[in-house]
Amino acid sequence: MCHTILVTEPWDHTGGRLDHDDRRGWTADGGRDYILPARSARWLFSATGLTRTSTPPVPESALVVGESALPDMARKALESIVGPEHVHIDRSARLGRAGGLSYTDLLRQRGTGELAVPDAVVAPADPEQVQRVVEVSAEYGIGLVPFGGGTSVVGGVAALRAGLESVVVLDLYRLDQLVSVDPVSRLAVLQAGMVAPAAERALAAHGLTLGHVPQSFERATIGGFAATRSAGQASAGYGRFEDMVQGVRVATPRGEWHLGVAPASAAGPDLRQLVVGSEGAFGVITEVTVRVRARPAARRFEGFVLDGWARGAAAVRALAQSRVLADVTRLSDPRETDVAFAMSAGWRTGAVRAYLRARGVLEPCLLVLGWEGGSSAEVAARRRATLRVLRRSRPVALGTAAGERWLHGRFAGPRQRDTLLDAGVCVETLETATYWSRLDALRSAVSAALVDSLTTPTHRPVVACHISHAYETGASLYFTVIVPRDAADPFGQWQRAKDAACAAISAGPDGPLGTISHHHAVGVDHAGYLRAEVGGLGVGVLAAVKRELDPPGVLNPGKLLGR
Amino acid sequence: MCHTILVTEPWDHTGGRLDHDDRRGWTADGGRDYILPARSARWLFSATGLTRTSTPPVPESALVVGESALPDMARKALESIVGPEHVHIDRSARLGRAGGLSYTDLLRQRGTGELAVPDAVVAPADPEQVQRVVEVSAEYGIGLVPFGGGTSVVGGVAALRAGLESVVVLDLYRLDQLVSVDPVSRLAVLQAGMVAPAAERALAAHGLTLGHVPQSFERATIGGFAATRSAGQASAGYGRFEDMVQGVRVATPRGEWHLGVAPASAAGPDLRQLVVGSEGAFGVITEVTVRVRARPAARRFEGFVLDGWARGAAAVRALAQSRVLADVTRLSDPRETDVAFAMSAGWRTGAVRAYLRARGVLEPCLLVLGWEGGSSAEVAARRRATLRVLRRSRPVALGTAAGERWLHGRFAGPRQRDTLLDAGVCVETLETATYWSRLDALRSAVSAALVDSLTTPTHRPVVACHISHAYETGASLYFTVIVPRDAADPFGQWQRAKDAACAAISAGPDGPLGTISHHHAVGVDHAGYLRAEVGGLGVGVLAAVKRELDPPGVLNPGKLLGR
Repeated sequence: MCHTILVTEPWDHTGGRLDHDDRRGWTADGGRDYILPARSARWLFSATGLTRTSTPPVPESALVVGESALPDMARKALESIVGPEHVHIDRSARLGRAGGLSYTDLLRQRGTGELAVPDAVVAPADPEQVQRVVEVSAEYGIGLVPFGGGTSVVGGVAALRAGLESVVVLDLYRLDQLVSVDPVSRLAVLQAGMVAPAAERALAAHGLTLGHVPQSFERATIGGFAATRSAGQASAGYGRFEDMVQGVRVATPRGEWHLGVAPASAAGPDLRQLVVGSEGAFGVITEVTVRVRARPAARRFEGFVLDGWARGAAAVRALAQSRVLADVTRLSDPRETDVAFAMSAGWRTGAVRAYLRARGVLEPCLLVLGWEGGSSAEVAARRRATLRVLRRSRPVALGTAAGERWLHGRFAGPRQRDTLLDAGVCVETLETATYWSRLDALRSAVSAALVDSLTTPTHRPVVACHISHAYETGASLYFTVIVPRDAADPFGQWQRAKDAACAAISAGPDGPLGTISHHHAVGVDHAGYLRAEVGGLGVGVLAAVKRELDPPGVLNPGKLLGR
Repeated sequence: MCHTILVTEPWDHTGGRLDHDDRRGWTADGGRDYILPARSARWLFSATGLTRTSTPPVPESALVVGESALPDMARKALESIVGPEHVHIDRSARLGRAGGLSYTDLLRQRGTGELAVPDAVVAPADPEQVQRVVEVSAEYGIGLVPFGGGTSVVGGVAALRAGLESVVVLDLYRLDQLVSVDPVSRLAVLQAGMVAPAAERALAAHGLTLGHVPQSFERATIGGFAATRSAGQASAGYGRFEDMVQGVRVATPRGEWHLGVAPASAAGPDLRQLVVGSEGAFGVITEVTVRVRARPAARRFEGFVLDGWARGAAAVRALAQSRVLADVTRLSDPRETDVAFAMSAGWRTGAVRAYLRARGVLEPCLLVLGWEGGSSAEVAARRRATLRVLRRSRPVALGTAAGERWLHGRFAGPRQRDTLLDAGVCVETLETATYWSRLDALRSAVSAALVDSLTTPTHRPVVACHISHAYETGASLYFTVIVPRDAADPFGQWQRAKDAACAAISAGPDGPLGTISHHHAVGVDHAGYLRAEVGGLGVGVLAAVKRELDPPGVLNPGKLLGR
């Protein structure tokens, strides 16, 4: 019996352009779009030592925004390319692109600390205009920050000057077209500024899907996915975004660059993989040719519980190495499972806990599995193959309700975060990946670093972790941290924790224990750790490529390679 | 009913060090290890206009080998690193590494045209010695050609000077160790000079396999696979070699470079993919960390016939896009199928032809499928999934004999070629890949270019083609060319044909129709076509990376980027 759900419209969000209020989690009528349930609040108080407090954002008018430093000549040159109506120097437009969505970005946008506000926002209409904007920015020595959904959580869209006199945000929202579809080759050319839901809607009209569903799905763009080596929640089934990229069109100060003539090649190194992950520092990605697939007609999500992290991780490893992973495979550690139970007012949590105790489960680890396919029969067959291997780990089945619950809440994280910020909480995530044999050591090291640095006599952090991307040789680890905010030094509080976690990742006895980022990218926050991962030679190679493609050094200043 | 064969020892070749006679296809007792059957010879005469002739190689003593130009100081420096016994300046050692195995290489090794002979052969013992050899070569400005199995068919190991006064071959055959195995992560660290059969034997002792089986398997090395982005015959199941590479250790003039800390990362561009395919021009790969899998316990190979190329290619595309490809998937076009029937003296070819006629097949295209797995049941399940999709293309099953026949002959190509060369034939292969929607256009264009340039009033080329690597978005095309050699101008004959084929690949109306190489790499032969594929900016980026890692420009001179 297989409760497969027929997929009707998985992409129900409209996407669209970002404004400042939208980024702060307010709905059109001025209310929060997520309210913390009383039950969750009580749990939070007891788990972390949080006291009832309210730290709402300051009104936008209270944020400090300096005068635009963009020289008149440069502004006129930009206006002559995109039209005066698409060069914005007003306060609201500039504020709306002042940084991304990391915890420290949000603090600044809420009035704590100093915002890095761009001198202007320029919005070209097409790849040709982007190319000309890049050339003008190179000519005038103006920093240019490519901006898609603005969802970076590592400072990837911060309007840093890095020694330049002015910095402009290049907003790609007008590059929102599906350029072409090749149904025979299962290829689509998408403009870089398309938000993911719009891309999925356009592809759905051809019976196709990209299948790239990160938590930032509602806002993030195709260009951003490519620039940051994004990984979606269904990466086990659809691959990481770099696996989907078949070609790129890139605007550089040296001219346009087109790559991609075949699915695979031995014509030297794969330069597409040098553009993917370059974070706008080598060029501005304007179009991406992606592999697409037939839109799934059926899907099934369900929840299981495994007893203890060791058994859970071993189960996921067995699925990966037997090559029977579900498309979505997500294992929470005991702490995250506990938080999920606690925060889920709608779940009959007490009954579930009792059931698990009765089944002898001491340390529940929630495992969410999801399969998609062309038919219910195909989904059922793939599910059988997964469960045949999973069975050895003695899972307790929670049924499809637990899976569907995760599915429907899977984009809610950012909205929940705004509400937690209002309540005086420090809430942030970080992620890494490593090979299976080091996974436990990495999880322990990072957890200990976070707990040690954030524990005070009155405050106790909650550090939860899950695997959301599994490979034959290893897996990702995604940490969520919740702790009462240190009102006196909110930046220092998090910076010390982040530094401790990054040091734990980067500085094992035999080199790094894992990668400094599995899918969030380098941005500003990880630039200092890149050398430990790719060596001085690796950093030198990236700098050499940047000098070759961006001789004046105007593209996304201070990102990837640091300042 | 599933005639699955239990795998006992798939890697029965001993591998080992190359000597000059071995490269010319002679066995220890001086005889050819492959004899052209009389039936095949008769077919060849009739199909191509070949007349009975004999063009055996000249004796080794007749080959012109100049004095070594290696300066004494440099030789002493190299000897101080590896020991005098591992710096070879004798004629035989230098001849044994004078080029690779392309048709023109073989012509030169058989006494036609001028051989590029290195000034010395140096054979370090380990990665540390390789690093010191690279540094000495940079210090003295001596060209250094990394040499594994010497199986390049694109001039990748040619001992070119490219303006340098002397050139040394760095033979990696002593780097032949399995360094470590991580059975939990399914990772193995292999030294670069391990030939594939030795790697498989070492892994088999741990119950593991790499599963990388190109036609050059018997001789090619792990480092060579990585340096050239090799693709094996089971690429549909095991992936291309770059998919297996998890880490590399590279010796460069600027120091050692280690890459690879996790299965996937968003810490900037994937620099491993910049090393993979760099053909020794950026550094010498000394160790490769590869993903390995459990050794298959069962396999099944079988043959099918589809009617016509269009239906055959559509069938392979359907398998790829339904993600039910067999691990080995190889479709011959009608001409190659015809040649296979004609050259297969042992096959009851007449009976097969009659059977196919009776089944109404007008243009037989042979499809070989092979599945491997942990058990007969697993193989049977995967086979069922493949056949469920294949059935729509109305295949005629030839059974396991046809599949096994291919399996046992799959490394024989190079040996057959030596025998054909003795008989006065020009025989060569070339390969490309493209997206599905362009596959027919590419096959037609390349075939026409080859046929047009090689047809004379007396000589008719046989141009056969197959798909051996299929992807969701496209496939490879592998061409085999047989034509009577033009005794008066053997190099010009092939050069014109190769140029015509490369132009057909590179110069479509909207840019390249496909990649200049799917798995043979760039070497010297394709360097002139790289710009058409990756653009002037791409060539500039590669040159910038080379300047960064190899400032004196001593590594594999004249390869990848040309002279």
